[in-house]
Amino acid sequence: MVHLRRKILSFSGLLNQLQPNVRWSSFLKIRDKETVQPDRTFKYSDLSVRLAAPHQLQPKPNVSELGFGKYFTDHMLKVFYYEALGGWQIPEITPFENLVLHPAAKVLHYAVELFEGMKAYRGIDGKIRVFRPEMNMDRMNASALRSGLPTFNGMELIKCINRLISIDQEWVPHLEASSLYIRPTLIGIDPTLGVATSDSAMLYVILSPVGSYFKHHEMNQGVSLLADPRYTRAWPGGCGDRKMGSNYAPTIHVQKEATEKGLQQVLWLYGEDRQLTEAGTMNIFLFCINDQGDKELITPPLNGLILPGITRNSILTLAKEWNQFKVSERKITMAEVCQLLSENRLLELFGAGTACIVSPISFIEYMDQSFYLPTLDHTEPIFRTLLKHLKEIQYGYVDHPWAFPIE
Amino acid sequence: MVHLRRKILSFSGLLNQLQPNVRWSSFLKIRDKETVQPDRTFKYSDLSVRLAAPHQLQPKPNVSELGFGKYFTDHMLKVFYYEALGGWQIPEITPFENLVLHPAAKVLHYAVELFEGMKAYRGIDGKIRVFRPEMNMDRMNASALRSGLPTFNGMELIKCINRLISIDQEWVPHLEASSLYIRPTLIGIDPTLGVATSDSAMLYVILSPVGSYFKHHEMNQGVSLLADPRYTRAWPGGCGDRKMGSNYAPTIHVQKEATEKGLQQVLWLYGEDRQLTEAGTMNIFLFCINDQGDKELITPPLNGLILPGITRNSILTLAKEWNQFKVSERKITMAEVCQLLSENRLLELFGAGTACIVSPISFIEYMDQSFYLPTLDHTEPIFRTLLKHLKEIQYGYVDHPWAFPIE
Repeated sequence: MVHLRRKILSFSGLLNQLQPNVRWSSFLKIRDKETVQPDRTFKYSDLSVRLAAPHQLQPKPNVSELGFGKYFTDHMLKVFYYEALGGWQIPEITPFENLVLHPAAKVLHYAVELFEGMKAYRGIDGKIRVFRPEMNMDRMNASALRSGLPTFNGMELIKCINRLISIDQEWVPHLEASSLYIRPTLIGIDPTLGVATSDSAMLYVILSPVGSYFKHHEMNQGVSLLADPRYTRAWPGGCGDRKMGSNYAPTIHVQKEATEKGLQQVLWLYGEDRQLTEAGTMNIFLFCINDQGDKELITPPLNGLILPGITRNSILTLAKEWNQFKVSERKITMAEVCQLLSENRLLELFGAGTACIVSPISFIEYMDQSFYLPTLDHTEPIFRTLLKHLKEIQYGYVDHPWAFPIE
Repeated sequence: MVHLRRKILSFSGLLNQLQPNVRWSSFLKIRDKETVQPDRTFKYSDLSVRLAAPHQLQPKPNVSELGFGKYFTDHMLKVFYYEALGGWQIPEITPFENLVLHPAAKVLHYAVELFEGMKAYRGIDGKIRVFRPEMNMDRMNASALRSGLPTFNGMELIKCINRLISIDQEWVPHLEASSLYIRPTLIGIDPTLGVATSDSAMLYVILSPVGSYFKHHEMNQGVSLLADPRYTRAWPGGCGDRKMGSNYAPTIHVQKEATEKGLQQVLWLYGEDRQLTEAGTMNIFLFCINDQGDKELITPPLNGLILPGITRNSILTLAKEWNQFKVSERKITMAEVCQLLSENRLLELFGAGTACIVSPISFIEYMDQSFYLPTLDHTEPIFRTLLKHLKEIQYGYVDHPWAFPIE
């Protein structure tokens, strides 16, 4: 890795480079009628901070014990929304504490809820960086629109989150295999049982120091997948392209079935032609030698059935910049995977997401057949090159506008 | 209505008639591998009761102001489940109070949640009856299995709920247009961010005195529906046949669109042939003169795309007993609706559900066209006969094993 940092951009300089809510047409394919009103927002300048007392501070766990999403930092951010009180209230940073909810709160009955996943990384220069947070803000607002929940100005939330991270900065791990996972969450809290828009909501952000999503040996051996065409994650006319809680509950039963078969994740297929859509909670990439004999990196298109991943978008952007092989967003079917495999033209299959970054896939069980993939058999696989470049940006080995330093 | 009650069955006699968890094969089409373990349950005999202090008791609202799910009674039932503590803990009745949840609780992120809807009615003899609660228990366990949440012995929960209703019996309205809505809810509360089965859960039950789901003039004029083939509620390989929170969040945005057009509910279509599946949160029934010139009552089949409604099941059972017209569970398409309408053979369209009981539908907007339905144009429509019979059972005008009196 390049150990010299090329250029330091100021915080405000980066802020000006970012323009949340303008990228939607290409990134998210928002429907025409959906609009964010950036003026209807809470403001960072109103932020109130109540720090934890010394006795409330938690001991920090060993990095080796982190796992994923098991430990949380000492503080959290909360912003309430009440239609009857004019909308968003002031944002507050408080000690980490339990939530108090009415038993009829809509989130508990009708899944009126959405979230985001972002990470803060401690760079080689000691600075903490967040990766492309404006993309998460755009997606969070898109999810809010589809859920009947209030939208906000993404930059205001980024600034509040940065302050939260800054307060809990000792929780950002010092080891490159780890990072601070950021979980913004928006829930509908109206205490009424009608299936309807929630006139009150709570946005909150919690922080969790995390290791890698997959265990070390899983990463070395590659992820194994169960592909069962009886199950469908998302469908046209649904919400599969929004990060809503309702996309996840139906997957847990199938994930359990995979685990019971000794497999790690589910490969979600769609349609009679059994298109690959996502793997577990990751976007999916196939690297192959195509029918023309050229190397090609393929990922399914943003057709409403898959989540518009930020790592997905970053990989596409990097690969296109490199211009070393063809890069396509198009349908991949199981028949195509089988054919490529049988002709030794499938080179790599890998997943991409904030939690796992880039994870090689080495095995698929499909229709009671075992398919071994050669993803890990190459000396310089492109999944590893992509992972290396992303980490160089995230951990500050190179300067890049995607890495957003916290003051 | 028949004002004489024909026979009084004892509580224990009815208890013996009910056998939750044996009816599934026909009612719910549970998948082979899914099984409830009735021994792994909490027990009514362990129930602890902590009554509200006099100053905690709420004033009871006027029946005319009830609406749906806006007011709650003075007590609630709670049962926790902790895998690490051997499973289900003892059930508790406590004063109605807010829930305290960890901000990472799985219910708030991945919609690990499910619910049921039942009603208690105050009969003409002053007795309070619950309608077919064993069916709700079966369905609740079916939803739990699909959500990776723990199952329980349905009869134990029925007994706990009966005790709760008995404590809050003054909240059961004395007017026949109203009832006490019962909302059992089961949520996953593991405080970890992995998308996985929840090892801890909370089952709780709240009670809400309710008026009719639709406003009086809406019932008189019939419900109006928006049918927009761009949106899909459920799909094969999904969870549309379970009462999971994740089925509802994606509908709210579409419901809002209907409301903005001045329409009350969404008619959910499925597939290229635009099958009618559900209307709002109701099952749907079509009464017509079929191609053979005979009267026929049709409802979509339990093919995984619709909720196995208890009112639906009751209507089918009653109509088959009457044997006055053909009763079918089969696909209905929008093309069929349009053709029947144009040939004056569509007699009635109505929704059925616990919240609305039986609600006539008088209008559909479909592909920018207006379809007026003659549901309310008949002197003795069958929807009204069905509603009358169901109410006679629910309010104790006749003795029937479906109405389950609370001691």
